[in-house]
Amino acid sequence: MSRFRLGPNRYGKAETHVVRVTKDGGIHHLRDLTVGVALSGDMEAVHLTGDNAAVLTTDTQKNTVFAFAKEYGIDSPEEFGLRLARHFVDSQPTIHHARVAIEEHTWDRIPATDGDGEPAKRQHSFVRGGGETRTAVVHYGAGPGGSGRQDTAAHVVSGLKDLVVLNSTDSEFRGYLNDEYTTIEETRDRILATAVTAQWRHTSTDSDWEESYPAARRHLLEAFAETYSLSLQQTLYAMGHRLLAGRAEVCEVRLALPNKHHFAVDLEPFGLENDNEVFYAADRPYGLIEGSVVRDEAPDPGPAWS
Amino acid sequence: MSRFRLGPNRYGKAETHVVRVTKDGGIHHLRDLTVGVALSGDMEAVHLTGDNAAVLTTDTQKNTVFAFAKEYGIDSPEEFGLRLARHFVDSQPTIHHARVAIEEHTWDRIPATDGDGEPAKRQHSFVRGGGETRTAVVHYGAGPGGSGRQDTAAHVVSGLKDLVVLNSTDSEFRGYLNDEYTTIEETRDRILATAVTAQWRHTSTDSDWEESYPAARRHLLEAFAETYSLSLQQTLYAMGHRLLAGRAEVCEVRLALPNKHHFAVDLEPFGLENDNEVFYAADRPYGLIEGSVVRDEAPDPGPAWS
Amino acid sequence: MSRFRLGPNRYGKAETHVVRVTKDGGIHHLRDLTVGVALSGDMEAVHLTGDNAAVLTTDTQKNTVFAFAKEYGIDSPEEFGLRLARHFVDSQPTIHHARVAIEEHTWDRIPATDGDGEPAKRQHSFVRGGGETRTAVVHYGAGPGGSGRQDTAAHVVSGLKDLVVLNSTDSEFRGYLNDEYTTIEETRDRILATAVTAQWRHTSTDSDWEESYPAARRHLLEAFAETYSLSLQQTLYAMGHRLLAGRAEVCEVRLALPNKHHFAVDLEPFGLENDNEVFYAADRPYGLIEGSVVRDEAPDPGPAWS
Amino acid sequence: MSRFRLGPNRYGKAETHVVRVTKDGGIHHLRDLTVGVALSGDMEAVHLTGDNAAVLTTDTQKNTVFAFAKEYGIDSPEEFGLRLARHFVDSQPTIHHARVAIEEHTWDRIPATDGDGEPAKRQHSFVRGGGETRTAVVHYGAGPGGSGRQDTAAHVVSGLKDLVVLNSTDSEFRGYLNDEYTTIEETRDRILATAVTAQWRHTSTDSDWEESYPAARRHLLEAFAETYSLSLQQTLYAMGHRLLAGRAEVCEVRLALPNKHHFAVDLEPFGLENDNEVFYAADRPYGLIEGSVVRDEAPDPGPAWS
Repeated sequence: MSRFRLGPNRYGKAETHVVRVTKDGGIHHLRDLTVGVALSGDMEAVHLTGDNAAVLTTDTQKNTVFAFAKEYGIDSPEEFGLRLARHFVDSQPTIHHARVAIEEHTWDRIPATDGDGEPAKRQHSFVRGGGETRTAVVHYGAGPGGSGRQDTAAHVVSGLKDLVVLNSTDSEFRGYLNDEYTTIEETRDRILATAVTAQWRHTSTDSDWEESYPAARRHLLEAFAETYSLSLQQTLYAMGHRLLAGRAEVCEVRLALPNKHHFAVDLEPFGLENDNEVFYAADRPYGLIEGSVVRDEAPDPGPAWS
Repeated sequence: MSRFRLGPNRYGKAETHVVRVTKDGGIHHLRDLTVGVALSGDMEAVHLTGDNAAVLTTDTQKNTVFAFAKEYGIDSPEEFGLRLARHFVDSQPTIHHARVAIEEHTWDRIPATDGDGEPAKRQHSFVRGGGETRTAVVHYGAGPGGSGRQDTAAHVVSGLKDLVVLNSTDSEFRGYLNDEYTTIEETRDRILATAVTAQWRHTSTDSDWEESYPAARRHLLEAFAETYSLSLQQTLYAMGHRLLAGRAEVCEVRLALPNKHHFAVDLEPFGLENDNEVFYAADRPYGLIEGSVVRDEAPDPGPAWS
Repeated sequence: MSRFRLGPNRYGKAETHVVRVTKDGGIHHLRDLTVGVALSGDMEAVHLTGDNAAVLTTDTQKNTVFAFAKEYGIDSPEEFGLRLARHFVDSQPTIHHARVAIEEHTWDRIPATDGDGEPAKRQHSFVRGGGETRTAVVHYGAGPGGSGRQDTAAHVVSGLKDLVVLNSTDSEFRGYLNDEYTTIEETRDRILATAVTAQWRHTSTDSDWEESYPAARRHLLEAFAETYSLSLQQTLYAMGHRLLAGRAEVCEVRLALPNKHHFAVDLEPFGLENDNEVFYAADRPYGLIEGSVVRDEAPDPGPAWS
Repeated sequence: MSRFRLGPNRYGKAETHVVRVTKDGGIHHLRDLTVGVALSGDMEAVHLTGDNAAVLTTDTQKNTVFAFAKEYGIDSPEEFGLRLARHFVDSQPTIHHARVAIEEHTWDRIPATDGDGEPAKRQHSFVRGGGETRTAVVHYGAGPGGSGRQDTAAHVVSGLKDLVVLNSTDSEFRGYLNDEYTTIEETRDRILATAVTAQWRHTSTDSDWEESYPAARRHLLEAFAETYSLSLQQTLYAMGHRLLAGRAEVCEVRLALPNKHHFAVDLEPFGLENDNEVFYAADRPYGLIEGSVVRDEAPDPGPAWS
């Protein structure tokens, strides 16, 4: 007769939405994070018998997020994630591994001026930045399935999602396989548009996170804009390559690029020519290109991507 | 025995997503609209018997959106909506009224430079602006229930939605009614945050749409930031008032402001003081404040808000 | 110089999500509502000066929802909405009108059996019903713009949304207008699919809500299924007519029917015939048909639809 | 100087939404799938130089989904996914691995009756079932990173998502770790609610998919309902264990259970007692419990879960 065992598992509090205001006199600063914690460790008993003795409750995890935001501030999502992950593993013998995943929502200042048009001494108004969401995933401790506590390596993956970009020319698509189900026609000029999800792994936990993130974002944008594209795969590789070449602290880049199809509308029935000027922006289906670029000497990722 | 009749009705193509590229040599410009059309008129027969003789199909409406984008370009959502609405009513005797509702998604340029760091002669890369969506609603023709065709007035309502703003101080909430279900405590300092949906009605169809929109948006932002708020209603009124005072072409402003509650977290159990520094950003439930500010001499809105 | 005035306004707590368990011995019953309250009245001061003296806070409104759920139970969304609306207006002199909008999420029982396969004496497990959401909107008091308190009529509109239905045949589309932008071809056989949003107004506040709702829903479903359709407008009218004819307590029906286009895929390039067997289900754009059917002797709706 | 290499990658058409009608005389049957294809293979050139010679276009993949729906029908998502995956790998030398992920949306029949109340000979009306979505993920071919083509094993994972369930009693939460950030109080009676995402791996590709799925779903539901729960982890393990014990063809179950917190509202301020009758259903944050149960003799999963 069959016997069963507990396989990989983790638990935690998801989507704790914390806003931290820092006051420098009348000048306020804002960080706005959604934090997800996932812990693993000695969890056999709680699954098999409901014995919670090894369980740090998800409510406690949430409290810790808020308390740490006060005690230590939020200098960057990466640093905040590292601090939380280390705390859970180092303070609780039953917790062997922590994964902290953070999304940061950006805010721009609405500038206040005094009577002379100079910046006012009180600045506390903000407008949500649109565009992409910054992300960070931190792992600390033994691997999720690890039984020992010796390996307490930390791994940091920075990233962004929903960075929507578009080139209105300099994109072709030709020379692909033809089988009995192929009907698409070749083109030497099309719109290329995508919503970038990118994640980049740091070699160590010592990066200057606040300097690194905007630079990495800029590399991605520039590589997208400057690549004459024969395929979205080529653009993906160029983006990853550019980021690696430009940022020595990064050892691996993973990208997921949905091909947001823009179809040139056939205007001939109306006696009009469409020289790639009018497009129907389709929702579904869409191409989805996923790939990674790796520095040759990149260290083993361990659980970094899990 | 009861008899029944057809009541108010309209039909049309919703969410036609059109992207229009305009090429000024190598410099490309982009407008990205989602267009909804709703027509009404002699629609008794199609409802009662399925006779489509009076029906301009929604597919044709979609085609018209694409064809007009080519023929006339898109100078502004308001102008594009007016052109479409007039076309449907003026070209089809069975169509007495058209409503065109447009959302515009903004794109920022990713600047390309030449070898000397000067702007390049080819510019065709864009990144989706985040933040708010620009909106426009145009009505043209007899009122939706109108049987005649004499009144072919046009009405234009400009607007925006999802403009998320936050003041980290200068907001109080005190002096409200107390009944047996009241437990909330008064505060002299709180975060005030909202996602602005605003619509403003133009007195005529002659506004300079591309100059008016960013100015109106700026008035809303500044009034939000500069109002010391005793209630979200007060802020709402200040925003509408400021827009009306600043833009002579606008005669009425309607605002919907969800109160995006940010609750100061109680950190006392952890021996920490929270001087309005750490907040839990809640999702639901939320306060919802809706209101309007009207210029005294505003003309009758007719169907403008329907 | 221009002067401005406060126009129509209302405020309240949106999306209070309350779950009410009723225990009949070991047999538990469940109602799961999301409640939105919107109040209006003497709100000039709060808008102009931030004086909250007339304001029943949205937090209090939320508390009232929870307290009433306990005190009175939830027999139906309509009855619960009426009770709340009457309370706010009748207990607060500054509140002249209340609108309560409710969505109900349905749960089905997961039946528990005892050792003999008979229904167990303890039943407390549920699975969320899918499909449509039941809705109810209640108005009570003077019209939203009303200055007096004499008219305290109540209005009840029941409804549902997201009832997705499909006929795989018995739908044609022919005989429509042809203009220069018309390219769609006539068809004698197509899929007709829609996501029904329906609202029906009751003549009085005395309907048997729990008997009325499922009967109304059944009329809508049957009329959709049994109508040989020459246009979606015809189907819409048939659905409204059937509901009115079948339910004497209802005096008006409003329907919004998106035409969820299913396009027969052209399989000829692959040497296959497609006899309306394989469809591409499109998302956007879509036709949107809105209309109403009214009983001749229907009383004035007042603010019922606002 | 650093050198870079292409890491793991795949590409394909996502979210092809196909509806297949099968006609048995006047009795119509319906299957409604959203299909995602992801292929990998000899993709070095397309990434590095944009050479598409090895690329089967995502448009072709979409066409194949539609053509296969016609040619072979859709007996089950698993069987349809297997057929597609095998086709792509076996017909294209450059494609070494295919992953096909399918979501099925269920429809219930709206029964038509003839004059005597008997089932009519024509049945072609449907209403979308709500509740959960059925899922299937199929892998075929060498592992995503595999260079050879020898290993053409197939793996099938069935599943469901958004199965929302609730027990209104028989759930406790006590005996957990207490640290300096722990404030939650123990309870011997609470609501336990979750939205089940479950996936179960089949030992072979020979399961009777249409018999297996509803049985697996029933095991999950019954285990949830019948488990007296001391923790959500215990419930998770019970659900996985029950499915494995009941279905010999399944060798591993993975579950993700968000703890949809229902907080008993404090009604004391209103002089009311709340004996677990009135709950506030919270959205965020939420606990998230993920875990798996594995049959001891389960074969290696290979890429099944990727």
